[in-house]
Amino acid sequence: MTEMTTDGAACAAGTWRPDDLSNPVAVAQALIRLPSVSPDPGESQRLLAAMLEALGFSVTHLPYGEGAERTPNFFARLGTGGPHICYAGHTDVVPPGRVEDWRYPPYEARIADGLLYGRGACDMKGGIAAFVAAVARQVVAGGVPGSISLLITGDEEGPATYGTCKVLEWMQAHDQIPDYCLVGEPTNPRVLGEMVKVGRRGSLNAQIVVEGTQGHVAYPHRADNPVHRLLAVLEALRATPLDHGTQYFEPSSLQVTSIDIGNDATNVIPARAQARLNIRFNDLHTGASLIGWIETLCRQHAPRSTVTATISGESFLTQPGRETRALVSAIQQVTGLEPALDTGGGTSDARFIAQYCPVSEFGLVGASIHKVDEHASVDDLEKLTSIYETFLREVCA
Amino acid sequence: MTEMTTDGAACAAGTWRPDDLSNPVAVAQALIRLPSVSPDPGESQRLLAAMLEALGFSVTHLPYGEGAERTPNFFARLGTGGPHICYAGHTDVVPPGRVEDWRYPPYEARIADGLLYGRGACDMKGGIAAFVAAVARQVVAGGVPGSISLLITGDEEGPATYGTCKVLEWMQAHDQIPDYCLVGEPTNPRVLGEMVKVGRRGSLNAQIVVEGTQGHVAYPHRADNPVHRLLAVLEALRATPLDHGTQYFEPSSLQVTSIDIGNDATNVIPARAQARLNIRFNDLHTGASLIGWIETLCRQHAPRSTVTATISGESFLTQPGRETRALVSAIQQVTGLEPALDTGGGTSDARFIAQYCPVSEFGLVGASIHKVDEHASVDDLEKLTSIYETFLREVCA
Ligand SMILES: [Zn+2]
Ligand SMILES: [Zn+2]
Repeated sequence: MTEMTTDGAACAAGTWRPDDLSNPVAVAQALIRLPSVSPDPGESQRLLAAMLEALGFSVTHLPYGEGAERTPNFFARLGTGGPHICYAGHTDVVPPGRVEDWRYPPYEARIADGLLYGRGACDMKGGIAAFVAAVARQVVAGGVPGSISLLITGDEEGPATYGTCKVLEWMQAHDQIPDYCLVGEPTNPRVLGEMVKVGRRGSLNAQIVVEGTQGHVAYPHRADNPVHRLLAVLEALRATPLDHGTQYFEPSSLQVTSIDIGNDATNVIPARAQARLNIRFNDLHTGASLIGWIETLCRQHAPRSTVTATISGESFLTQPGRETRALVSAIQQVTGLEPALDTGGGTSDARFIAQYCPVSEFGLVGASIHKVDEHASVDDLEKLTSIYETFLREVCA
Repeated sequence: MTEMTTDGAACAAGTWRPDDLSNPVAVAQALIRLPSVSPDPGESQRLLAAMLEALGFSVTHLPYGEGAERTPNFFARLGTGGPHICYAGHTDVVPPGRVEDWRYPPYEARIADGLLYGRGACDMKGGIAAFVAAVARQVVAGGVPGSISLLITGDEEGPATYGTCKVLEWMQAHDQIPDYCLVGEPTNPRVLGEMVKVGRRGSLNAQIVVEGTQGHVAYPHRADNPVHRLLAVLEALRATPLDHGTQYFEPSSLQVTSIDIGNDATNVIPARAQARLNIRFNDLHTGASLIGWIETLCRQHAPRSTVTATISGESFLTQPGRETRALVSAIQQVTGLEPALDTGGGTSDARFIAQYCPVSEFGLVGASIHKVDEHASVDDLEKLTSIYETFLREVCA
């Protein structure tokens, strides 16, 4: 692999053999060298598909969306036996920002001091490369147990409208829903092996508009101050914690993000008041249950009010079963660490997958993602490959 | 008086004799016919001064302010004996609004169905006319007991910067502070005789600005939500009533008039939040005590906050003594009603006078003030004249 030029496109499908693909660093470099800011224009994804075909996968390209929204995706499967383990990932990357701020050019994939620099090094071409290398090693060693698939999207960092959720619909329609899905997003805050994500919190945005009756501050009994009614609603919403957390979830969190009244007259009680809030919620709630709760408190404290709410995502949890135990065991064997089973942080495509099958997330260290000088440790790429390989062997045993 | 034209300026000083001035309706008509939207340009006030000179008063003209702010005022005194009773009023009026909306032109002073229509009919050229007539009747009857003065300003409805407070400074400097002051503002909500004002609430405006630390709503522990801190301050301010009222005062009232954050991002905890509030407070508080209270709660709940406060007026109360008793007795004799001693409503120039001497307020019915078709009942003008005359006799007895 040392002969590779910086033009990744030169690595046509035929040049990759299973032995070459066993090297996660070489695979990651080849993928990084094909820039693929969301949505991935396709080169990077075509290379990945060619690599998988070289390993024996059958690849179905599933582009969705039209024009500027056109998103390349594919589903690749090797073997037909059980269990069917799916690896989900994305080939698109966030923009590099100011290229001149980078220590090494973002698409050069330079290795320095044991670190592989480049946009996508951890999020998540490096993770994908580790999985490809893990499968390649099994292929070289005689074949994979069970069957393996990859769900690859070119738009996870963008709106994600024509990505994972569309591919899942196709998989459902073609009887390709796996027994378990592992998402390769970078889940470790600082050290490889410290965290597996087994779920995510839900997110809800709500706007409350309270109507009152305008009047003079000297005669409050002739007015109906909507600010005081809104404050009563917000007091009630904040009076008691939503919950105290559950086994795998932090307590749900409600944040009032804005209150806007815009009344410049110091002697006037305004006619209307509004507030906006966000709730990150755990598996004790649903978006609908929280909207109902907000509406009930509004009816109590501000009968003339309206609530407009949007559920960005429901919470989900994959109760740890034998697959998650196999993943934890593989991490422990390779890193010596006992990973926390966590549900914190933002959202990922795992929220779509959770509607079809059990799903967990484990990948590289995420500290440098979306920043200049994004990098993955070469040692971590090797270790992650071993973890994925061990996991595949254990889960199919 | 029936020959009077609608040109009030024709009524030069010399044409008014004490007998003519005993008619409050004629005096009110003459004053209304000289338009004097704040600040009174002077004609209306010059006529009033001439009337008082005809009754024997010595008038000192006290204009203050320069250019557009120039405000005509005067102090007039009759007699040097005690007690010295002062009547305070204003010759300026609020604008008429759309003249075509009036039933009768606002400066015509038309009498119809027993009502005198015109801008200033009750607020307060009618009240001044009743006092002038009351004094005229005593002059005609042989002279006033004690001594009487009038503190007249041309800017009560405007900023009032160069009006009553400046004249009071002059009165102080010239040893003319009275034993008691009666302000002739319209104090009766519906029926003449139902309400005397013996004080007024204070008014305070405060702005609270809370600094926080911006952050992502998914990680509230890494941010410091200034909205939540502000809500805690506002909850604390509203948690317990300021008081339950006193003998002559309603409970103090705090109204939050605006909260402004202006954060459009639903996933961002903002860096700063601000609110504005007004407090109308009774004699249990001072502006300074309330500002101190607000600052203490801000320190507790939002250490990184600033409070900016303006005291529009302190509360004041003239504990009812012999003069107020004489006023109440006069009202009872003339109207048969027992007036309530009240402190409600907005502010008046009485707040300045209260810093120098005891002060009460009693005038016409205020229902039509500042509106189109402002009017005073002719019968009320007669009765108010009798009340003022009886009051002057009783208070000097
Ligand atoms: Zn990612
Ligand atoms: Zn007035």
